[in-house]
This record gives sequence, structure tokens and C-alpha cells, in this order.
Amino acid sequence: MKYAAFLLGICLSSSALAFDVLQPLPETPIIPTNNPQNEEKVALGKQLFFDNRLAGNHDVSCNGCHNLSRGGDDDGGVTRMPNRDIRRSAPSVYNAAHQSTYFWDARALSLEDMAIDHLFDPNIMGNQDRKKLVSRIKNIPGYHLSFKKTFEDGVTLENISKVIAAFIRSLNTPNSAFDKYITGDKTALSPSAKRGLEIFRDTGCMSCHFGVNFAGPAPGPAYGMGDGFYELFPNNPGTSYDELYGITEDVGRVLITRDRSDVYMWRVAPLRNIAMTAPYFHNGSVNSLDEAVRVMAKTQLKLNLPAKDVKDVVAFLESLTGEYPEMTLPRLPETPGKSLVK
Amino acid sequence: MKYAAFLLGICLSSSALAFDVLQPLPETPIIPTNNPQNEEKVALGKQLFFDNRLAGNHDVSCNGCHNLSRGGDDDGGVTRMPNRDIRRSAPSVYNAAHQSTYFWDARALSLEDMAIDHLFDPNIMGNQDRKKLVSRIKNIPGYHLSFKKTFEDGVTLENISKVIAAFIRSLNTPNSAFDKYITGDKTALSPSAKRGLEIFRDTGCMSCHFGVNFAGPAPGPAYGMGDGFYELFPNNPGTSYDELYGITEDVGRVLITRDRSDVYMWRVAPLRNIAMTAPYFHNGSVNSLDEAVRVMAKTQLKLNLPAKDVKDVVAFLESLTGEYPEMTLPRLPETPGKSLVK
Repeated sequence: MKYAAFLLGICLSSSALAFDVLQPLPETPIIPTNNPQNEEKVALGKQLFFDNRLAGNHDVSCNGCHNLSRGGDDDGGVTRMPNRDIRRSAPSVYNAAHQSTYFWDARALSLEDMAIDHLFDPNIMGNQDRKKLVSRIKNIPGYHLSFKKTFEDGVTLENISKVIAAFIRSLNTPNSAFDKYITGDKTALSPSAKRGLEIFRDTGCMSCHFGVNFAGPAPGPAYGMGDGFYELFPNNPGTSYDELYGITEDVGRVLITRDRSDVYMWRVAPLRNIAMTAPYFHNGSVNSLDEAVRVMAKTQLKLNLPAKDVKDVVAFLESLTGEYPEMTLPRLPETPGKSLVK
Repeated sequence: MKYAAFLLGICLSSSALAFDVLQPLPETPIIPTNNPQNEEKVALGKQLFFDNRLAGNHDVSCNGCHNLSRGGDDDGGVTRMPNRDIRRSAPSVYNAAHQSTYFWDARALSLEDMAIDHLFDPNIMGNQDRKKLVSRIKNIPGYHLSFKKTFEDGVTLENISKVIAAFIRSLNTPNSAFDKYITGDKTALSPSAKRGLEIFRDTGCMSCHFGVNFAGPAPGPAYGMGDGFYELFPNNPGTSYDELYGITEDVGRVLITRDRSDVYMWRVAPLRNIAMTAPYFHNGSVNSLDEAVRVMAKTQLKLNLPAKDVKDVVAFLESLTGEYPEMTLPRLPETPGKSLVK
């Protein structure tokens, strides 16, 4: 099922909209029945997440671009990796379990598919051969043993994707000021952030940015994993921002669907911890959150937002920063006395 | 003071050599009086160690090449980084506090100098401007505050080098099987490892590889920080290994000293956790520890070591793997709503 954000927007952009479409971060995300969560999977997925031996050239780990010590992303605009041609900014993996699709163009419909897509994208992990990747991981005794303990069939590509997905499902950031506010603590938001929330609703930002992750409907009983939620960017083309920030250089989802109606269509971006994940947009071209708010108001809603409103919306967006999970640095299994990489 | 390893070797290579030149890893390394250790420094140094904003191009952290989830090194042979021309393998930072010099060519004489050298080496962290680096770090509110708490003069280049050095001094791996053995547990080494230790002594490996880190004298009352301990590699030139592993392509320490007698001179490499830090040598050209042992025997001692002896020496070297410290993944301070990198 494919919702177009603007249709839903007709209902949601009304200033009479109640705030009950707002949802705190659930205690746990929806867990797919074909990949039940357990500690072993999470621990194994965490090791793989930090392990550059997962890349075809063994030169980067998931954490290299989705840095868990930061916002779960990198902060270099368009991600830089040796010998890669990457044109999009790495989105955060925190709270990704509450998404229904993955990548800026929504080309993966589950976290498991997202992992596999990353592994074989020539510009991301760059593996070329499924068997080679599986046998490389299998040849690391610690992984061989852990996969055997966790899955009857040991190291397989599917199981690799399952443990990475399980680990990412553990990366959630509850207890933001916003979450406290909407679950009853009316003092949790500053007056500026409260005004920002009202502006965010009344100007129409919330037409697209609603739901658990402010990225549209989250997977649940009424809305399936893999159901996409898209919007045009720019919806109001021809502003000076298009050129200034190279907004129209990347045509978006059409590159995946080959459907002309998807030119400049993008998955609605999640907003939790947005203050921790500068720079902004698919091309990481906008360096600051206040400028990102101005650009969105103009390119999406045809609005020149007054400086005070921008400040308030930023204060609201800053209230979406949650508590990052504490974790130990993983130790990666070795192949004593030899390198698999060289 | 400069010791030439081969001179000391005359005494140490005797097969009558007692094992009392062997030392377990001390509980704490020597701490320099101008940089007393404390928790604040270690915590701050740990954050900086994981922070790519320390690099001129903001594209790599210390941990990128000295991976603490692995052996404290990378495992890619010669270290690969975007837009860099690196020809040497990243040595491990674990137990580096027990060294008296740093880098393969011993060009830094303390951990503090080592940190500064890394920061401004165009092929490592690649900073060009001291003031820019300091102001970048100072502009991150979390760092500004932590440095103010830790040092009267806040963020300075010297203080950056001090906290990184303090963190590295906390990275020690005690309780190897070897350490247990020489402190009284005679069952800690396998028969093969015990034979390996004897071969290691009797063939002359120990002429250079002795002391706390098996890299020559460690800093202490009799031997100062900054006193180097060097050896020719290859000491027996002209073997087929020279070409096979490109051993003579890099002339070593002469590039630093410009003294002809330093052609092919190198700092004696430490051996703790050597089984965890493949591939081997300054150029990371040898993939396995058994081949590294064969190459060293031939190029340094003119010996063709029999296969059984190689196996035993490897068993001994494997006994040098200690317990890596557990640590939490650091959270890095943010600049909310903006990127310093872009």
C-alpha cells in the first residue's frame, strides 16, 4: 500500500487538529514474526555492526557511517568513503525499528532487506559475491560458533541480516522532553518548544511529519511494514533554495521505481533526535537546523517563516532528542595469527 | 641515549641466559610527572580517541585505524584512508604506555608527542593549522566544559595531547598466559609454548625482543622515556623475502634522522597480543604469524627455522595475548542543530 503524504495532509493540516496523532516512542518496536528478538542475536548483530570485515574491501563497518557514539549517522554531509561514489547522507539508525521503509528512497521494506541491500550496494559495503561474504564470516571462529548457537543453519546471509536487524531494533532513544510532555508532564516543554509544536501543527509540517518517528504512519496493525509514505521535495519548486542547496540534483525515488510520477518523491524523513544529526536533507547540504526549517517551510509549504517562529520550531525539534542507550564497546572475534583482510 | 639492539644482543643471545629478563606487564605503566593520570583525563581522551572531528578533514578518528574492538590496530595491512598516502601498518595502541618511543621509526619520544605528530601528519589526521584544530574542539560545548573542568587553561593543543596520552595509558592487557607463567603458574603455558619460549631465547629472538613489551628496555629508572631501541631489518639482506614482502622498499629511520647509518633501522616492534594484530611488519606485508616467524628467523638470524620450531614459537607468541579492558562506547558531545564538519 502506498500513501501519498499530501492526501493525508488534507485532513491533518487543519489547525483544529488535536494532538492525539502524536505518539511517544513505544517501549519496544514491532518485532516481525520471522525474526523474534533475543539477546544472542542482538549481541551478534552488534559485533557485525562494528566489524569492517563485513565490507567487500574490509574497509568500513556499519558504525563507520552510522556512528553510535554520535547520532547514529555521520556528520560529514554526503558520506565519504574511500573509492565510493555516495551522494546521500547517512540517516540515523536510532529508532529505525519504527520505520516502515528504509533508505531515502524507501528501496528496502524491512530492516533485514535494508541490511542485505547495504552489504551488496557497490557504494556502501560493496560485496560482490554472496558466497564469499558468508564464507569470510564463517571463517572467523568466534562468529562461526556464535551463529551455530543462535541458528540451526549457522552463518547464512539471511541470518547475518537477521542479527543486524535485531541489533538495530535495540537502538531506541526513549524519554525525550517531547515524550514526557505528551505522556502528561506539561512542564517538560519550554514555552518556546510548545509554541513551536503549535506552529509545526498549524503550518502543515505535521501533514507529513506525524506518527512515532514523525515520518508518517509507523508499522502496526493498520499499516504494514513496507508500506511507504512519500512526499515531493521540493513540493514548491523554483525557490532559490533549489540551486543553493542542490535540492533538485537528485531525482529521488524514480531511480528505484522508474515511474515518472516518482520524480523528486522521497520517503518522509524521521525527525527524532534531529538536533543530533546535522547536516540535513538527502544530500546533507544544509548545515544547521534553523536553516533546514526555513528551507522546508519555503519549499514544502510556500511559507516564509518569521525568525521567531523558526526559533520556536527549532526548540520543539530539540525536544525530540531522547536518551541514547548505553552500551559496551564490542570485542570482535579474531582469527589468531592471521588476517582475513590482507 | 641510543642503544643498538645488536650490542645488547651479544649478551642476551647466550643460551645460558636466565629468564629473569622476562617481565610481566606491570599493574600500571610509568606516568610522566608532567601529566599525572586521572579519571577526567582518561574519559576526555577516550571521547577524543573516537571523534573524527579531530582530523583535519573530519573523516577519521584514532579508533578508525587503532581499533579498540580488535587488537588496537587495523587489520588491512598498510592502513587505508581516503586521500592519504600511507605506507605503514598501524601499530597497536594497547600497552603502548610501556614503550619508550612511538611510530615504526621512533620519531615521537612520548605518548604526548605521538598524539601531536598524528594530528598534524598530512597522511594521518591531516590538520594543517594548530589554532583551527583547537578552536574546532573548543567550539564543541561538551569539550569546552570538560577541558575547563580538567585544566586551568581549558582546550589547548598540549591538553589535547595530554588527555589522549592519558587514555592510551589506560589501555593495558594484563594476565596473558605468559604473564601467569612467569609469575609462578607453571601450568599456564602449554608444552609447545614452553619449547617456543626456549627457542625464542636460544636462537636469539630475545636479543631484541625482551623487556615488558618484548621491544627492548621499557621506560623506568634505568632507561628513559624517549630512549630508542633499534635494529636493522633486514639484518641479513638479500634473502628472497626482501622482494617477496617488499621489505627493503622502505628505508626506515633514516627518513627521520637523515643519518646514513639509520638506513633500514627500525624501532624493535613490541610483541604483546601479536596474534591479535595480523598482518605483520612495518608494511603489513606478511599475513600470518608463522610466516612472520620464518621471515624474522631468516632475515634477522640467518636461520631456516624447522616447521616444528616455528609452530612452537607461534604457540609462545600466542601466550602473549592478554585481557583487553572492557569499556563503554563513548558518547561524543554534539553541537546541537549544526554540524562542525560540513
